[in-house]
Amino acid sequence: MSTPINVAVVGVSGYTGLELLKILTVHPMFNLTYLGTSEGGESVEAMHPSLLHVATGVAKKSDAASIAKVASLAFLALPHKAAMGFAKELIALGVKVVDLSADYRLSQSVYEAHYCPHEDPQNLEQAVYGLPEFYRSKIANASLVANPGCYPTAALLALVPFLSYMDANAPVIIDAKSGISGAGKKPNPLTQFVNINDNMFAYSPLSHRHAPEIKEQLQIQGQIEREVCFVPQLIPATRGMLVNAYVQLNESLNPFELLEKYYANDPFVRIRQAPVTLKSVAGTHFCDLFAKMQGKTLFVSASIDNLLRGASSQAVVNANIMCGLDEYMGIPTLSYVP
Amino acid sequence: MSTPINVAVVGVSGYTGLELLKILTVHPMFNLTYLGTSEGGESVEAMHPSLLHVATGVAKKSDAASIAKVASLAFLALPHKAAMGFAKELIALGVKVVDLSADYRLSQSVYEAHYCPHEDPQNLEQAVYGLPEFYRSKIANASLVANPGCYPTAALLALVPFLSYMDANAPVIIDAKSGISGAGKKPNPLTQFVNINDNMFAYSPLSHRHAPEIKEQLQIQGQIEREVCFVPQLIPATRGMLVNAYVQLNESLNPFELLEKYYANDPFVRIRQAPVTLKSVAGTHFCDLFAKMQGKTLFVSASIDNLLRGASSQAVVNANIMCGLDEYMGIPTLSYVP
Amino acid sequence: MSTPINVAVVGVSGYTGLELLKILTVHPMFNLTYLGTSEGGESVEAMHPSLLHVATGVAKKSDAASIAKVASLAFLALPHKAAMGFAKELIALGVKVVDLSADYRLSQSVYEAHYCPHEDPQNLEQAVYGLPEFYRSKIANASLVANPGCYPTAALLALVPFLSYMDANAPVIIDAKSGISGAGKKPNPLTQFVNINDNMFAYSPLSHRHAPEIKEQLQIQGQIEREVCFVPQLIPATRGMLVNAYVQLNESLNPFELLEKYYANDPFVRIRQAPVTLKSVAGTHFCDLFAKMQGKTLFVSASIDNLLRGASSQAVVNANIMCGLDEYMGIPTLSYVP
Amino acid sequence: MSTPINVAVVGVSGYTGLELLKILTVHPMFNLTYLGTSEGGESVEAMHPSLLHVATGVAKKSDAASIAKVASLAFLALPHKAAMGFAKELIALGVKVVDLSADYRLSQSVYEAHYCPHEDPQNLEQAVYGLPEFYRSKIANASLVANPGCYPTAALLALVPFLSYMDANAPVIIDAKSGISGAGKKPNPLTQFVNINDNMFAYSPLSHRHAPEIKEQLQIQGQIEREVCFVPQLIPATRGMLVNAYVQLNESLNPFELLEKYYANDPFVRIRQAPVTLKSVAGTHFCDLFAKMQGKTLFVSASIDNLLRGASSQAVVNANIMCGLDEYMGIPTLSYVP
Repeated sequence: MSTPINVAVVGVSGYTGLELLKILTVHPMFNLTYLGTSEGGESVEAMHPSLLHVATGVAKKSDAASIAKVASLAFLALPHKAAMGFAKELIALGVKVVDLSADYRLSQSVYEAHYCPHEDPQNLEQAVYGLPEFYRSKIANASLVANPGCYPTAALLALVPFLSYMDANAPVIIDAKSGISGAGKKPNPLTQFVNINDNMFAYSPLSHRHAPEIKEQLQIQGQIEREVCFVPQLIPATRGMLVNAYVQLNESLNPFELLEKYYANDPFVRIRQAPVTLKSVAGTHFCDLFAKMQGKTLFVSASIDNLLRGASSQAVVNANIMCGLDEYMGIPTLSYVP
Repeated sequence: MSTPINVAVVGVSGYTGLELLKILTVHPMFNLTYLGTSEGGESVEAMHPSLLHVATGVAKKSDAASIAKVASLAFLALPHKAAMGFAKELIALGVKVVDLSADYRLSQSVYEAHYCPHEDPQNLEQAVYGLPEFYRSKIANASLVANPGCYPTAALLALVPFLSYMDANAPVIIDAKSGISGAGKKPNPLTQFVNINDNMFAYSPLSHRHAPEIKEQLQIQGQIEREVCFVPQLIPATRGMLVNAYVQLNESLNPFELLEKYYANDPFVRIRQAPVTLKSVAGTHFCDLFAKMQGKTLFVSASIDNLLRGASSQAVVNANIMCGLDEYMGIPTLSYVP
Repeated sequence: MSTPINVAVVGVSGYTGLELLKILTVHPMFNLTYLGTSEGGESVEAMHPSLLHVATGVAKKSDAASIAKVASLAFLALPHKAAMGFAKELIALGVKVVDLSADYRLSQSVYEAHYCPHEDPQNLEQAVYGLPEFYRSKIANASLVANPGCYPTAALLALVPFLSYMDANAPVIIDAKSGISGAGKKPNPLTQFVNINDNMFAYSPLSHRHAPEIKEQLQIQGQIEREVCFVPQLIPATRGMLVNAYVQLNESLNPFELLEKYYANDPFVRIRQAPVTLKSVAGTHFCDLFAKMQGKTLFVSASIDNLLRGASSQAVVNANIMCGLDEYMGIPTLSYVP
Repeated sequence: MSTPINVAVVGVSGYTGLELLKILTVHPMFNLTYLGTSEGGESVEAMHPSLLHVATGVAKKSDAASIAKVASLAFLALPHKAAMGFAKELIALGVKVVDLSADYRLSQSVYEAHYCPHEDPQNLEQAVYGLPEFYRSKIANASLVANPGCYPTAALLALVPFLSYMDANAPVIIDAKSGISGAGKKPNPLTQFVNINDNMFAYSPLSHRHAPEIKEQLQIQGQIEREVCFVPQLIPATRGMLVNAYVQLNESLNPFELLEKYYANDPFVRIRQAPVTLKSVAGTHFCDLFAKMQGKTLFVSASIDNLLRGASSQAVVNANIMCGLDEYMGIPTLSYVP
């Protein structure tokens, strides 16, 4: 058996940090040597009481130099802007980085139009967009991988196979729904139980920051700029994401067969003959797809677990590829059903 | 004070029957003289335990002749096909009818293409589509009103104001979500708690029977046939409906102002400056609207209570108009918030 | 018809303030002339968007002298301690008060042991405990009514009828469950959707401040001091409260008959032959009761809407009685079912 | 590495069957060679769509002789009565059995008083009650293990440590709550989403069939017969179970310390210093305990996943012990949090 690979998780107190912890605790080859938070000092059990008797350790105040001493790869589960500071230092110290924030997902100009000035443009140029189904070989050689956003992951897995058939003049309509864990752990009025139970509503309609990420990737993959109309919504579920896209095709085709063929070698993309559900993928890395046509309008729908395929399990898949391990080593397959 | 008007509810055991009961119990002018079910014999309290100490009575086996003796208007809360049998008899006996089923909503050919052979084509021709904001004056003179479907109610209130601006060649995309009460009271595997809690999924995507209803009304109102792509979905909420429509306009415009002007005299259509929610309308007859443009794509979103504005309160509004009462007499305004 | 009575709501921005608003908006005799908040300046629509087109007005910075000019009765929907400041002033100015806080519910010594030093002991002595089924005639003559806590309301309606049969040496066991709206509107980590969805847990077990309130009322009503073991729990529901009590009786008896007789003249207490549910009472002032014996152990269970019978509708019933109106004028009876 | 052990699952289409499938699919030593249902012919993917790309196979019409050819141990996930037919045959054919039904949990007289005539009294005498923390060594030598009920598992893990301190004359009060998956997969009106969402209610209060199971085990473990008052309730959550017990002790003691000592060698019983939650154990085999005293009343609370510790993971732990494997081999530890 090969030697374990030491890894760090920076930002271990949040939901994606917890999911990373859960995966890494049972991963056969990654050895978790460093837990970082912004203040340091919290035990795993205090941050995540469900891990009592499962995982131990005390977080340190995150510090790149200390990480470099004990880990050869770091997962950054930090807000945007905070992430690029750490990534820059870690890369300089020879530590590979999987960044779960938005900091390395976009071209500099698009990033700066939607987020803030970029502080690490050199690494940004080298960063690889970590959607393994499309960028496997680049990821294998990358030292910095930008883990995609949750909505873009689902939208791109649904749309990219159809790119060459799409009418370039019609907008790509995306009506998306996310479970509440996507809003993070920090209390806020919108995500109070009383506000979301039996409720549903759009937020940032036509102005959410994942729209430019989807748009840029569609352009890279399809070599044409397209209009993307993106409306995200919160639904009363803890986890899971359903992304419905409506696009105009130039011809009528059998979308099930096209998807089956496109993802024939991708076991974690499942093509369904019935509409996808949130629960079939909750707790797993799967992306389920369903598609149907009416005239030249294609309806294609993707469901993922926003915290796993939309964040933490995709991060570990990227790390597996970067480290030469089996792509799906230690990746969860058993859904939260019933 | 004027004389009370005697009314009947046929099909009182289901959810829309319950909502009719709740409204009619406190309605100032309607006097509920007849409760009908398919078998008869059940007490209100046995069918609807929440009405203990609130409403009493025992259902009779529904019979048109008996209804005609005690009521001048009947609400039919029956499945399609069952409804037209009763309506035909009741109309012949001089009883006005508000039919909550699909039986009189469509032209005969469209009805027969999507449901079954029509057994009452004569009355079908006279029936008025009961969306009061659009057909008030016709309803006032009707003896048979076809209460609209829940999805069409929300979709039409959202779309009709924009009809004259819409690109006739682009399809109308409708991504809709309904609470589970829309599926009725009868137990089925899809609507079991375990199946829908923390879950969400489309059903009958691009083939639901409310699509031709929306399409036909858009054609009547806009005088052009349009493609309607309609994807309904179930969400883990008891009641409420959110209908998102995406259409291409011929020009850019301020959709908030347009809607404000269009519905200036309709107090139960509320134009929102923030995205609509399910809860703000749950328990009420309100339809809340929100609209926003990106380029020439219009996103317009409507929320209603599927059992009230989508069925029972709309039926009572129609009955109010048919009987010359104030349109909104006895109509619920206080939402289930928090 | 008699003259309307002008009333004020102080603390109108929270959940119980909203419920008061909803009831008073449609109340036939109370005329809402004053809305107060701690800062003032918020419109009803901004505080409670669901009331758009239903209620209007702008809150003032709460001030007793201004209230006294425009209202003869005030509802205080304030935190404990804040309430007694206002009540003292308002009473001095001749304004009747229904206080929804804990400030006037307990004897001074018990209050000070569990809350804080009491700042208005004189009025405390005159205050009447506002559980109408037990204290109707005292409430009619009171100028200050202490509206009971939600848990005590349910527990006392369940237990008081059995007091003369209860074994004085055995503790009263109360296992209680509350919907999340009971925790108030302010965001906190416990009441985030992600934390409570699919979850349930006790809080302050055996140390909640409603235990001494229950204990003191049981002592007043039964003239014996009893041990009360009280465990409250949060459940994933917005509103509703289920209180299960387990007590030892000195003899076996038919609890259904006893309760039927005890509450024969109380239409808002309903004795059920099947276990009570949250939904049958949600949105109403009803308290539903179910009881069953095993040997000499009595199991008695009560369900109420925590925001209505447990707060706002009970407050309006108290005000009705204090003002000589029909006890149940304007009180909601139609539950949020389905 | 040792040879895999071939096992069968009979009754694979239900929720406990699914959970057995999920565990056995990743179990290092059990090799699943037989899937049985009452009719046979269904694929794993058709019964459990979430297992697409995870598990395959087609169920056979369950038959003991066929099972005996391919498996040395069988899990019976069948209703009571159906189970004892299979168990009798399988034992006769030399196949070890873990029975998840009630058929072998009780003494014959108690079983027949609460269920039906027993058809396999000989094996009933040999059957071992499969609560590993109490009966490990007997399980190791058993060929037939009766997997405990979900409520009894939680109640007994909470109560047994205190048995020698309990007042024999006071009843054991148990107020229990279960997620809806405990009611099984078959549609019924009670478990429809609309009926249980935002709701909660007791069922079979003081007459549920798990009460005699708890009572009999308390008597076996404590050698005294005790009164057990048991009230189970359904809550709006998919999985999880919270069992609160209230008992009178003969003395005051530190319940946390007592539990810590009692379960010092049982890693899947976790003693909490804060009240237990459903979610911390959902998806795992853990039983979390919290206890506190008020005078001589002990409040002790246990949470488990009703489908895992209350059924399928406990069954696999029993099978591990019966087969000489590590007790916790392949047992899930990562909870469904957030």
